[in-house]
Amino acid sequence: MTTTTQIRLAARPVGEPDDTCFETVTVELPALEDGQVLLRTVYLSLDPYMRGRMSAARSYAAPLEIGDVMLGGTVSEVVESRSSDVAVGDLVLSFSGWQSHAVADAGAVRRLDPSAAPVSTALGVLGMPGFTAYAGLLEIGRPQAGETVVVAAATGPVGSAVGQIAKVKGARAVGIAGGPEKRRALTEEFGFDVGLDHRSPDFVEELAAATPDGIDVYFENVGGPVADAVFRRLNTYARVPVCGLVANYNATSAPEGPDRLPGFMGQILSRSLTIRGFIQDEFTRSHGRDFLRDMSQWVGDGSVRYREDVVDGLEKAPEAFRGMLRGANFGKLLVQVGPDPTR
Amino acid sequence: MTTTTQIRLAARPVGEPDDTCFETVTVELPALEDGQVLLRTVYLSLDPYMRGRMSAARSYAAPLEIGDVMLGGTVSEVVESRSSDVAVGDLVLSFSGWQSHAVADAGAVRRLDPSAAPVSTALGVLGMPGFTAYAGLLEIGRPQAGETVVVAAATGPVGSAVGQIAKVKGARAVGIAGGPEKRRALTEEFGFDVGLDHRSPDFVEELAAATPDGIDVYFENVGGPVADAVFRRLNTYARVPVCGLVANYNATSAPEGPDRLPGFMGQILSRSLTIRGFIQDEFTRSHGRDFLRDMSQWVGDGSVRYREDVVDGLEKAPEAFRGMLRGANFGKLLVQVGPDPTR
Repeated sequence: MTTTTQIRLAARPVGEPDDTCFETVTVELPALEDGQVLLRTVYLSLDPYMRGRMSAARSYAAPLEIGDVMLGGTVSEVVESRSSDVAVGDLVLSFSGWQSHAVADAGAVRRLDPSAAPVSTALGVLGMPGFTAYAGLLEIGRPQAGETVVVAAATGPVGSAVGQIAKVKGARAVGIAGGPEKRRALTEEFGFDVGLDHRSPDFVEELAAATPDGIDVYFENVGGPVADAVFRRLNTYARVPVCGLVANYNATSAPEGPDRLPGFMGQILSRSLTIRGFIQDEFTRSHGRDFLRDMSQWVGDGSVRYREDVVDGLEKAPEAFRGMLRGANFGKLLVQVGPDPTR
Repeated sequence: MTTTTQIRLAARPVGEPDDTCFETVTVELPALEDGQVLLRTVYLSLDPYMRGRMSAARSYAAPLEIGDVMLGGTVSEVVESRSSDVAVGDLVLSFSGWQSHAVADAGAVRRLDPSAAPVSTALGVLGMPGFTAYAGLLEIGRPQAGETVVVAAATGPVGSAVGQIAKVKGARAVGIAGGPEKRRALTEEFGFDVGLDHRSPDFVEELAAATPDGIDVYFENVGGPVADAVFRRLNTYARVPVCGLVANYNATSAPEGPDRLPGFMGQILSRSLTIRGFIQDEFTRSHGRDFLRDMSQWVGDGSVRYREDVVDGLEKAPEAFRGMLRGANFGKLLVQVGPDPTR
């Protein structure tokens, strides 16, 4: 009999999810049926979208119910298999959530090749965040050579990929992050043309200096005051793929006025802007294969670099998750739930 | 020596443009140079975009200067010609503005064929408003058969064309207008599936009943509370071409809070919406020829009907213009500046 330790949604958060929102339980897993596998979690991915699923309001997917295991992508090791497609010892991409073990249908997991890339990248640069950057930038942002692309949370897994893909396409990349250390990484580690610190008192002026020809693509994954400053510099025909608004996720009510919506619509009209929300799985069928081919090549040849921020132990997940919503992580945030047999 | 009576911008409006914003003067016109024509204005088009050009703020085009003749499209008769391309008696589409006569380069006017359609349609259904509807709906809105298209100011020249083109494309058309008479015209005259009166106390419920499958395309030419109600019913992947925001044009400051912008961005994200501002001349090169072919055919076969609201006398232009910004016109607003020789 196998048990799993799970972190479940215990209460819906009001604002930042505090400890009362989570409960940890250990339960027995059912016996495997034909076609199923027993998985041991190696890495759990923590991503901003999870905050939306903790609330009762419909977002782009149904909310979690109270008592549900917190959801999330994982890299897992197969420890028992009743499927001919997956063998014990295989490492797979799964969606096991915040738990140490899980039972899954073999058809719902994807085998990873540890010789091609570190398996953790399946949750980052070669996984959902990387694909979000790829599809949103290339299909919606459509940067042309010489244009200026701006992205915030730019040392994160989406933002860092956006900037580097923009460079591959010949565009100018301006990244925004919080603090001098991240700012430095933007140019030194990820090859942005300019890195900016949104905490700088002169941020608005520095953004203007960094974008002398205005902004043609703003990849929106943050919202808040950073977005406000960027919007004022958008060029006619600029494109704004919107994949996240992490600055708003813990908001408990609409902010005080004035109401900026009419002015925003006026900007959309007077500059012929395109604002386009998207969830990456819209593009899986159309762009998923190209993504894996292109991104694997770019990671392999060094055009796209990535950074991971690995927290040790499932019990650390709630605190790490809270930190991510505040921008405390530095790179793709992963929880190491158990040993990685490939390292 | 020929004189022209002009209405000029005398002062920038604060809110609704009152009489102090306009001044009427009569001046002599210069003698014609080679390649020029002398024009007598027959019809002057009044359109909401003119309000933006009266303000000092940069919109999508440079503002008028104090003392400039108020701008606008006209249908004019050639009364003298020093060009072999245009003959005395020709009726042409010009951009003479709010005045009785004008001198223009022959290359800047387009000859109209009175036998093909009433010449006034060059300012409406077969002109800029019709093209705004055509390009915005088909290139940005992209309605599919069976989808639901909503448009406000729906008895106006843009809105009425949007609804009727949507019907040509097999979509369901829901029009919104102000008052019972306009509401009735939406179904009886323009063939909308449903007409709604935004002044109805039950407007929100009536909109819900009229769009049981949600809204796939909202052609935004109004803004304000109507837009708020429509946005709440947009489906995933809905498209919103934004060509005007007439409800906001006289606003003197940002409205009081709460600030709805973060919530609006959240909707864009959670429903994968596309919001796209445009000015019709972006599409002139790519779609202008198709427009004239398609729209002429649709007007000819009765698929697209149009309504004109003709005000007699140039001196009536300021009051008619103010009324249009409040929605008082019923159909395409034209000023008859002089006799129409084709009627």
